[in-house]
Amino acid sequence: MEIYFDNSATTRCLKSVCEVMEHAFFQEYGNPSSLHHKGLAAERCVQEAAERMAKTLKVSPKELIFTSGGTEADNLAILGAAWANQRAGKHLITTRIEHPAVAEPMRYLEGQGFRVTWLDVDAKGRISLEQLQEAVGPETILVSIMQVNNEIGTVEPVEEAARIIKAKNANTLFHVDAIQSYGKLRILPRKMGVDLLSVSGHKIHGPKGVGMLYVKEKTKLAPIVFGGGHQRGLRSGTENVPGIAGLGQAAVEAYENFEEKRAHLSALREAFLAGLSEFEWAHVNGFGSCLQHTGLKDERADGEHSEAAWDDRAGRENASVSSERADGEHSEAAWDGLAAPHIVSVSFDGVRSEVLLHALEDREIYVSAGSACSSHKPAVSATLKSIGLGRKALESTLRFSFGIENTKEEVSVCLKALKELVPMLARYTRH
Amino acid sequence: MEIYFDNSATTRCLKSVCEVMEHAFFQEYGNPSSLHHKGLAAERCVQEAAERMAKTLKVSPKELIFTSGGTEADNLAILGAAWANQRAGKHLITTRIEHPAVAEPMRYLEGQGFRVTWLDVDAKGRISLEQLQEAVGPETILVSIMQVNNEIGTVEPVEEAARIIKAKNANTLFHVDAIQSYGKLRILPRKMGVDLLSVSGHKIHGPKGVGMLYVKEKTKLAPIVFGGGHQRGLRSGTENVPGIAGLGQAAVEAYENFEEKRAHLSALREAFLAGLSEFEWAHVNGFGSCLQHTGLKDERADGEHSEAAWDDRAGRENASVSSERADGEHSEAAWDGLAAPHIVSVSFDGVRSEVLLHALEDREIYVSAGSACSSHKPAVSATLKSIGLGRKALESTLRFSFGIENTKEEVSVCLKALKELVPMLARYTRH
Repeated sequence: MEIYFDNSATTRCLKSVCEVMEHAFFQEYGNPSSLHHKGLAAERCVQEAAERMAKTLKVSPKELIFTSGGTEADNLAILGAAWANQRAGKHLITTRIEHPAVAEPMRYLEGQGFRVTWLDVDAKGRISLEQLQEAVGPETILVSIMQVNNEIGTVEPVEEAARIIKAKNANTLFHVDAIQSYGKLRILPRKMGVDLLSVSGHKIHGPKGVGMLYVKEKTKLAPIVFGGGHQRGLRSGTENVPGIAGLGQAAVEAYENFEEKRAHLSALREAFLAGLSEFEWAHVNGFGSCLQHTGLKDERADGEHSEAAWDDRAGRENASVSSERADGEHSEAAWDGLAAPHIVSVSFDGVRSEVLLHALEDREIYVSAGSACSSHKPAVSATLKSIGLGRKALESTLRFSFGIENTKEEVSVCLKALKELVPMLARYTRH
Repeated sequence: MEIYFDNSATTRCLKSVCEVMEHAFFQEYGNPSSLHHKGLAAERCVQEAAERMAKTLKVSPKELIFTSGGTEADNLAILGAAWANQRAGKHLITTRIEHPAVAEPMRYLEGQGFRVTWLDVDAKGRISLEQLQEAVGPETILVSIMQVNNEIGTVEPVEEAARIIKAKNANTLFHVDAIQSYGKLRILPRKMGVDLLSVSGHKIHGPKGVGMLYVKEKTKLAPIVFGGGHQRGLRSGTENVPGIAGLGQAAVEAYENFEEKRAHLSALREAFLAGLSEFEWAHVNGFGSCLQHTGLKDERADGEHSEAAWDDRAGRENASVSSERADGEHSEAAWDGLAAPHIVSVSFDGVRSEVLLHALEDREIYVSAGSACSSHKPAVSATLKSIGLGRKALESTLRFSFGIENTKEEVSVCLKALKELVPMLARYTRH
């Protein structure tokens, strides 16, 4: 049995997505810029995908720019906003736990004369809204905060952040990297006060090589790629028609029977956390099981925002939702506002992450050490370091990320494998 | 009968390309950055595509950077070279007939303090090597010249250009936009003295949304997109595994039975030109039929480089090749060095291009007015203007571009349609 628990690294394309793409490859193969109807048909294909996707966000299709992926979407948001608005100021704000697709353009801009404030996070990976409030000033042109952390699954309070930012400086643009949250949380950029929002196709069972940046109308943004002036001049280059059509299909599927799918993911996560709680050598990073948050004292949680957290947007929005599969004792809504339903980060005592990763792989269980998206730079994880993990924990952390195709049986098999492997491997580790 | 003569705008994916992509979508769906073998399999997929493509260019697979298409490849070459080498100088050289994917980043750099020399072209669209030689100086960090013009099919003397550039300044980088030439001409960047060379997938019956930049080893280049450090830091973002695999397949197919395919395209072009020569109201832009170049005086050609042209690289390289389908009187090799085998630009007396385009469309014949890639900016064609077309000719020009799936019968049908349509439409045009 092959168990793929690396869905935050990438997902398998849905059959329906591939079918839509195949149609585009063979039938709508025209260039959307062509004046004849082969071109118009291809343009309609792109337009339809934009409409389908826009509906999931309740925005206008005209506010979507298709890119080559999440990384380009993040880059366009950050570099594009910086270049277009630098006259108003050269101050940017982000967090210490962003994906490199946000952190690296920020660092690049630091080298280009911009000042960047890097917000700290607490032991669970949440930013402090107070620190954010203090940081925003008249020179602040852009704040970028990820919605769901890709390594530990912590949900950042983006709606509250938006309110704070706009209250202090109405002109500051707010970018949200939604690459791990789109399809897992309900996202309404307008309601949330978000100006720019990035999405990636291959994280939601769509194709690789395509992503999307939501750009609120009238937002000042400069292109980062120049050419034929496609997509209203914001992203030149012949549109990836099949990829965009596939992304549109994946977007629709992600929000079809959404509550059911989320409940399924939540149930997998809960079952996994419940199993892990029996292993004294397994330590969950970020927000663990909801059991910890309801009544029981959470030893690992930072006291200061636990009350507020229960009451946040996602919690309220889903207050009426209950999951049959979730343990009865707590409401799913409670932790939904703090942790994504599909990511669990675990540090294992006495076992190096790579050793355990390969031991699991031998049993056809696929997981990540840290975040796959940046394994080309095998540096220490900024996220894990920022939440205060020590050297040993940093080197022994794995990420398990679930997808809709995973089952509870797979979770059981994985738990059993961990129970057998970790104590054995720990014995062989030199102290 | 549907006749698609717009293959320079985009091509239909080959069945074999789609099969390779489908395999990648369902089987090799891992993230190439993942440490487990799902990731390694995906990485191998990318690696294999690089090897297959590198073989067609006789370069190292490590010298290929995969991008989201031709536009990004051109942007990476130009912006990347400019940023990385600006300490050595801020002078760039290009031509007046480049695709916007080259011209626009050049214009952007002009706004950033760089000086750009725009080379003129003659009536056939060829640059003057003398002007190039004069332009290269100690401050020149990059020259960018397209190999085949996308609107009129003229082949630029890039190998001679390379020699001239390097002789005057060995440190000047030479970029060639090969988006219309790859798969149609034999391209050997090392032999040609080219440092950077761009290719697009969807122009060679490969997928949209993927392209490639050849970067000669040790070439100083800066990334334009920042993130996880993929592709040796030059192009961050999860690799578009299926797209790259598809591009690799398309590249192999383009150079399989290459001479046969090129002879087929040449024969289509020759047949079309022969037919057009009977219409007094049709004027071919750029280099017309080879018949014009062998013995007969070419009234439209600029005298100065006609001798040199016969003797150029492509001519020599293919001197031994003869095409059965080509008219006997001339050797195919002769014009192969001056015009691409698949593009014909024609100005029609007394008919606006859009009117004729739609009249042809009614007969299911699909062509372009100017170049589709930039129809979003319905400006006057820089290429047609640069070769000296007057206002009337500018407004009445169509591009016919052939693909390997086209037939001689389609050419006949198209000629017949033109013969019927143009005189009729011209009668209805106000003078």
